[in-house]
Amino acid sequence: MTQPIPYTEVRIKSPFWDPIIAVTRKESLGVIYEKLKGYGTWDAMKLTWKPGDPVKADMILWDSDMGKYIEAASYALYHERDEELEARVEEAIDMIVNMQQADGYIGFYHTAIEPGQRWSSLAHNLELYGAGHLLEAAIARHVATGCPANDRFLGAMLRYVRLIQQVFGDGEDQLRDYPGHQEIELALMRLYDLTEDRSLVDLTQYFIEERGRTDPPRQGHAWDMAAIKRGDNPDTFFPYYWPGPRCYWHMQAHLPLGEQQEIVGHSVQAMYWLAAVTDLAVATGERSYIDVTDRLWKNMVEKKMYVTGGIGSVHLYEGFGPEYDLPNETSYAETCAAIGVIFLAQRKLKVHCDGAVADIMERCLYNAMLAGLSFDGKTFNYDNPLATVDCSHQRQGWFKVFCCPSNICRLLNKLGGYLYGCDRVGESVRLTVHMYVSGEVRVGQALWHVDTEWPWHGRTRFTVTGSEPAPTVLRLRVPSWAGSHQIRINGDPVPSEFDHGYISLPSRKYSPSDTVELDLPMTATRITSHPLVHQNRDCIALQRGPFIYALESIDQESRATDLRLVRIDRTASLETCSMNVRGRPIIGVTTRGTVVDVQGGSQLYTNNQSRAHPDGHPVTLRFIPYFAWGNRGPSDMRVWIPQCP
Amino acid sequence: MTQPIPYTEVRIKSPFWDPIIAVTRKESLGVIYEKLKGYGTWDAMKLTWKPGDPVKADMILWDSDMGKYIEAASYALYHERDEELEARVEEAIDMIVNMQQADGYIGFYHTAIEPGQRWSSLAHNLELYGAGHLLEAAIARHVATGCPANDRFLGAMLRYVRLIQQVFGDGEDQLRDYPGHQEIELALMRLYDLTEDRSLVDLTQYFIEERGRTDPPRQGHAWDMAAIKRGDNPDTFFPYYWPGPRCYWHMQAHLPLGEQQEIVGHSVQAMYWLAAVTDLAVATGERSYIDVTDRLWKNMVEKKMYVTGGIGSVHLYEGFGPEYDLPNETSYAETCAAIGVIFLAQRKLKVHCDGAVADIMERCLYNAMLAGLSFDGKTFNYDNPLATVDCSHQRQGWFKVFCCPSNICRLLNKLGGYLYGCDRVGESVRLTVHMYVSGEVRVGQALWHVDTEWPWHGRTRFTVTGSEPAPTVLRLRVPSWAGSHQIRINGDPVPSEFDHGYISLPSRKYSPSDTVELDLPMTATRITSHPLVHQNRDCIALQRGPFIYALESIDQESRATDLRLVRIDRTASLETCSMNVRGRPIIGVTTRGTVVDVQGGSQLYTNNQSRAHPDGHPVTLRFIPYFAWGNRGPSDMRVWIPQCP
Repeated sequence: MTQPIPYTEVRIKSPFWDPIIAVTRKESLGVIYEKLKGYGTWDAMKLTWKPGDPVKADMILWDSDMGKYIEAASYALYHERDEELEARVEEAIDMIVNMQQADGYIGFYHTAIEPGQRWSSLAHNLELYGAGHLLEAAIARHVATGCPANDRFLGAMLRYVRLIQQVFGDGEDQLRDYPGHQEIELALMRLYDLTEDRSLVDLTQYFIEERGRTDPPRQGHAWDMAAIKRGDNPDTFFPYYWPGPRCYWHMQAHLPLGEQQEIVGHSVQAMYWLAAVTDLAVATGERSYIDVTDRLWKNMVEKKMYVTGGIGSVHLYEGFGPEYDLPNETSYAETCAAIGVIFLAQRKLKVHCDGAVADIMERCLYNAMLAGLSFDGKTFNYDNPLATVDCSHQRQGWFKVFCCPSNICRLLNKLGGYLYGCDRVGESVRLTVHMYVSGEVRVGQALWHVDTEWPWHGRTRFTVTGSEPAPTVLRLRVPSWAGSHQIRINGDPVPSEFDHGYISLPSRKYSPSDTVELDLPMTATRITSHPLVHQNRDCIALQRGPFIYALESIDQESRATDLRLVRIDRTASLETCSMNVRGRPIIGVTTRGTVVDVQGGSQLYTNNQSRAHPDGHPVTLRFIPYFAWGNRGPSDMRVWIPQCP
Repeated sequence: MTQPIPYTEVRIKSPFWDPIIAVTRKESLGVIYEKLKGYGTWDAMKLTWKPGDPVKADMILWDSDMGKYIEAASYALYHERDEELEARVEEAIDMIVNMQQADGYIGFYHTAIEPGQRWSSLAHNLELYGAGHLLEAAIARHVATGCPANDRFLGAMLRYVRLIQQVFGDGEDQLRDYPGHQEIELALMRLYDLTEDRSLVDLTQYFIEERGRTDPPRQGHAWDMAAIKRGDNPDTFFPYYWPGPRCYWHMQAHLPLGEQQEIVGHSVQAMYWLAAVTDLAVATGERSYIDVTDRLWKNMVEKKMYVTGGIGSVHLYEGFGPEYDLPNETSYAETCAAIGVIFLAQRKLKVHCDGAVADIMERCLYNAMLAGLSFDGKTFNYDNPLATVDCSHQRQGWFKVFCCPSNICRLLNKLGGYLYGCDRVGESVRLTVHMYVSGEVRVGQALWHVDTEWPWHGRTRFTVTGSEPAPTVLRLRVPSWAGSHQIRINGDPVPSEFDHGYISLPSRKYSPSDTVELDLPMTATRITSHPLVHQNRDCIALQRGPFIYALESIDQESRATDLRLVRIDRTASLETCSMNVRGRPIIGVTTRGTVVDVQGGSQLYTNNQSRAHPDGHPVTLRFIPYFAWGNRGPSDMRVWIPQCP
């Protein structure tokens, strides 16, 4: 068990990350607040809605919008005082605490609008999803404010959790049901980490184990039963965001956990679910939970993940499609799903320190997730295509389902919590570094200083200060893209063990005069796809360090701005160049290619023409890291580029 | 003006079409009736809904479901007696007539459920769309039953039309608004054809001209005004089936008609709209209406149409995407949209007898549209992809939006009305043949007999019977795919004029002993795409006669069943073969190809590998006509096949 070191013990001081995190505090949280106010979500929490006022389909999401805002703001406030933000968080908490009903219930929709319908439509009404996000918010706020006694928000949520514990279960008077969109499971396990109350593990396990079961004494699927009970016909009923009636695979509830062989359905839900299952594995020691998460993870990363780390290829239901079917223009690859992968990866790294898992976490962080936020912090991606046509995709300041913006803020303001793990090996402390970000991390009495050129260059230096550091094993990740690595202590090469993508240095009592240096050369490389990914037939993508690269039309020669016509040379060298995108320095990659000649014809289809490869004009192609695209006005972008014939 | 010869004057006796049309009568109309009964649509017309009963989002469609069923059944009953069907149609008509309110209003949703909200949400509530389909049904029934006096259905609809005429317009007390989903415009012009009442043209012209206008005395867009009036904020309001707030381009209402340069938005709506605009051009002689439909048609067929004739590349909003962006797996290509293209093409052929337009009509009929119906008549396609993966697409017996099944039945049971045109040239009658289908067509006193091998072979023979046929000009279409043609009268070649894809024979008084023979050789050919259609990069499709071909996995050698790995030889000959698909004879096409070797690796992405073209195993590929796919159980299908390197 390699316990993650919490963000409260980590300080980031990174030329790359600092401006990104700063912009979430200075801009994004403000934008989110204004949208929640403007759309009515914020003030709805005052419960002033009355019959005859409009009902919006997305109102069932509003608890979660508030919860994620409070959670993200709590992390931000831990790092930096901000009186206005503090006041907003306090106001939100007051409203939520005041929503609590006599029996402990907290939930906007089923208090204000349909109070008689509590727990009637768990498959799709997001009731427990909202509860989960409010609970996570309360825990986050509690910890960020130093775990005060008599915390009114956490106290209210604890009462609500007790109600949920009474309501759900297989007892005589209990409801045999579970949430559609997984989230409460994660939140309950997080509360267990805080309180060590085993009954929280039991409830989580109940939700996880009950999901998808139909065996006696059940009389069928819980959601068929619920539909009939409330007067719906399960064979025809479905809310518009389901692919069809009884499509319980969409919520990973078509089979019991242990019987699931393929990762399917809504991609955010799947990640939150497996993250909770992993938490449960840790808490219970139950090996079968590990097996199923490993199996579904493997299916995902080997057959259903974009090269950016994005998941969910089907826009229509925000979820996983068939194996190897990864369309680039219509990829869903929701920002929240990439965040979900990071949640799951972090938990998997607790159980087994596997560099292949950390590779995926890194890929999601630097690519699929980071592309979700504009450089100015004011606009966001919900979906993250790998190619656009006709400038058809741009980040937005507002979505009806407003989940991604606050999720991005919550991840970035807690980024320090994803970098390090810690455990003991014999008498030694073992500090594991999953990702290299400049700053400091406190481990017991020791303060480790990390000084790195990441993510643009691969050199990292570790030093330590603090009184009497314990003997320490440093375990450092070597990403799979690094062709080689060099490790030195005080300038001298040292022997090291290499295991599952991590090098371990011998235990040593480090002193402030010691310097550990790791060098991971970053060179641009070509990536090819499995032949079954037919969308990428004869295409390549470029990677350098943690970044996947993309062509953006704005960077190309005038004849190459329609990226559909661009071909990349099969063997030309890949050169790096320093660039600047809206004030931020980046490293670009250039290479040679051609642009296909559109032979003057206006015909869409031509019969009877056995055309050879079309002619092309030579051009220089300029790539930027994928996350940086779309920050300079409307333009097109493309990750996978066909090779010259 | 080449007036189409109505279906009532045409009898189809075709080994190809007869079983298809028969199955719609024997099976499809029964399936549709059962679904309408089972889902509640049918009995809802009895207005028994009461507050507290469930409200379904799709209830706003129910008038149109009933209207299209009655219309399709009316055509079927014209051709063939069926007492059960007759009784159902009469029951439906009774219910609709009984729904009529004192002021003439007929509409389920705004009578039963939201009576206070009439005309408040025309942009999206399909109120006038339903009215249009009921009106078309009443006209169709009236004509099919011999235009009886005191027709209760048509009478009721005429009263409703008078109400609509009172409500809408730019008068003091009138509503300045127009329907979201175009349809009433078509229906009103059809009523004008029947009644010659010019006020119907005026109302249609009002709806067409008002659409998208914001100039004074208007205070903005009609739908912004309507939203504000009913208490919605137009900047955030949108129903879930719109791409976003104020996306009036989705309904072709972002600009006045004359200013529209590119075909955009919902593809069925666009076709119904332009069909009505063409009707209006004919009725008013207004040239600018022709110009705009020509411009948008050209944009569609040159940049936004699938090779099957399908339109609408964006699944998410059922509409047109960017130019040249034609994804194959996620193509929408709704069956109703292909039917809409046929509606529009038929009207364009009135104005100008252009073979290029008839080519598109034919392509839609034999491919995008015909694929919508299973061979057994019991299941239907809503969307018509050009490729599937993992057997992810199959025809369905039921959709929540149940528009396509009855639309297919309505088109096929009126197919005779799309084949011929008639006008006068000097003293002669001119009979124009757009498409070749065996059967008879009555032109004045003459009965023309058409005996053809179409669509499998290109030989057609025309003979005539009847008393004293007038001097006749035969004008026969030569499809653009036909490399040559031969025309003979009584076995002798005759001189003919060739103009815009039609050959015209000199005027002649034909006698029953005369035989006109047209031979259009059908050979399989390769089709390539414009280079900007990047999805079809280096791919070809096959065509033979009117059919576009496809690979279906079930027909392939076992190593070639994953169609993503199949490549087609660039130059190998294309051979035809007789096949049988569920009892129906078809002509297949075979050729040589290879299957890419999946080199054993499980890696989704491989770094640093400059792979040459992968190895392949030789295979024989067997193609079937696209419309025939999906009739033999779950399988995959693909139209565009990459060429061997």
